[in-house]
Amino acid sequence: MSQPAFQRARSAEAKQAREVAILDAARALGRGRGIREVTLTDIATEVGMHKSALLRYFETREQIFLELTAEGWREWSASLRADLEARAEATPADVAEVFAATLAARPLFCDLLAQAPLNLERNVSLEAARAFKLVTLHEVALIGGELSRLLGLTEQQVLDMIATATGMAGALWQMASPGPRLRELYTSDPRLGHAIVEVEPRLRRILTAFLTGTGVGVPAP
Amino acid sequence: MSQPAFQRARSAEAKQAREVAILDAARALGRGRGIREVTLTDIATEVGMHKSALLRYFETREQIFLELTAEGWREWSASLRADLEARAEATPADVAEVFAATLAARPLFCDLLAQAPLNLERNVSLEAARAFKLVTLHEVALIGGELSRLLGLTEQQVLDMIATATGMAGALWQMASPGPRLRELYTSDPRLGHAIVEVEPRLRRILTAFLTGTGVGVPAP
Repeated sequence: MSQPAFQRARSAEAKQAREVAILDAARALGRGRGIREVTLTDIATEVGMHKSALLRYFETREQIFLELTAEGWREWSASLRADLEARAEATPADVAEVFAATLAARPLFCDLLAQAPLNLERNVSLEAARAFKLVTLHEVALIGGELSRLLGLTEQQVLDMIATATGMAGALWQMASPGPRLRELYTSDPRLGHAIVEVEPRLRRILTAFLTGTGVGVPAP
Repeated sequence: MSQPAFQRARSAEAKQAREVAILDAARALGRGRGIREVTLTDIATEVGMHKSALLRYFETREQIFLELTAEGWREWSASLRADLEARAEATPADVAEVFAATLAARPLFCDLLAQAPLNLERNVSLEAARAFKLVTLHEVALIGGELSRLLGLTEQQVLDMIATATGMAGALWQMASPGPRLRELYTSDPRLGHAIVEVEPRLRRILTAFLTGTGVGVPAP
């Protein structure tokens, strides 16, 4: 006998509410202390579930964070494109500034961007890895449309630009967020001044130079 | 009573030989399977020591790999500078090519570059972190001398260039080395073609664009 429709719906809704609660807890903990410090047990405790119950909703700790990375891509891409789409024209410096500002405003996403290829993608099922990749490639194509419209970038230049923006956002955020113990070391030893990194201005300079130099000497299509 | 000089020397030599053997084992294991997969127990087994004995030479697994990262910086920097120093002049594309070729030829160093800020620097004593940072800053200054001589880069541009080169070498290497399971997924699903990354050509294009665009529109000093 099949379940009554309203009961299936309630159960599907309840399941979805649980998934949302788990993602909310992981997001809050990741924001607070950096993802590397958040275990599956921490998330289960935060959401008030047993770890074994939580594993009925997600395969691994890494799948939870990979889900947040996909969400981060969609949310960042929408915000970035909303800004770019409002412009009839833009210089390389304008575009670099929007990339740097929207990425630096999303520290959890920057943290996730660095963790995804190192840890997250490697500890999930192939189907979860495939679903994640398809989300990122879809967003890359949408962003690419704007980069091509405003600056005439080719597909390869789009891929290089987005790899540089997201790769450096991840790398710079990790360098800029060494934790209180190392930060104290860097600020107390004058020889280590260059170890202190600020994400937004450096990312803006790097992307401005990259976009300015991209296409220089390359004939227009 | 003090130890006889020859006995101290023999003991210091023996200690150093042990340290070299530990670093050799960690290097070989890291090359073979990627650093993330190498535990302290693996290294101890490889070198034929008990884990507790190994911990008399290094504080943590991370200190061993941070030592290899410092060694990687010195060795890469020497090779890079030897190439640059032999040139009376160079274009941005020439310099980008030397950076990309020397980094891509050192996969273990690329792996370490991505792991250092995420994992290694955070799991060692402050003195070990300080010593590591001083090595990298010293090499950055030496490389900077050549970048300034050949391309007239300022100190800030040097820091941006080396952060981009080493940050993207680490990030691209991680993306390009997803392990056999994910690689099979990326090559078998035609929608995932863009998930396959080649380190050297992409790094060369990114650094060429960055160096070409750096200083464009900036008045000469």
